[in-house]
Amino acid sequence: MRKVKIYITLKEGVLDPQGKAVQNSLHSLEYKNVGEVRVGKYMEVMMEDTKDIETQVDKMCDQLLANPVIENYSYTIEEVV
Amino acid sequence: MRKVKIYITLKEGVLDPQGKAVQNSLHSLEYKNVGEVRVGKYMEVMMEDTKDIETQVDKMCDQLLANPVIENYSYTIEEVV
Repeated sequence: MRKVKIYITLKEGVLDPQGKAVQNSLHSLEYKNVGEVRVGKYMEVMMEDTKDIETQVDKMCDQLLANPVIENYSYTIEEVV
Repeated sequence: MRKVKIYITLKEGVLDPQGKAVQNSLHSLEYKNVGEVRVGKYMEVMMEDTKDIETQVDKMCDQLLANPVIENYSYTIEEVV
């Protein structure tokens, strides 16, 4: 088995109202040294080993997990025993 | 400035209906080798440097960013020029 850790972030230049809300909340809580906040998604996907697992993960991200118009993704693949 | 990358995941044993939905969708798309999927959050927070930045990030996570009852968090802190 492999554990694929996928990180999905908004592309630079795409507005992030959720991040802005988090930033404002942190300021209200007196964390004044906080600057920009960007909120993304994180997924852990267990997969049976296959050849071309990276190609498969790319396809999964493009088709379903990320929106390639506004989001970037990256991932790491770990061996799990 | 520091860029703090925060990863928030559901604790083990906590049901993840969103992850289950993603898993089912991946199966519908013929990715049959996909097992359990867990969905979490990922945040990038820009912060001005301060002493005890780790203590501050811990407090921010406990107070606002994560729900410590059902979620775990981890983070990395990077220097940004």
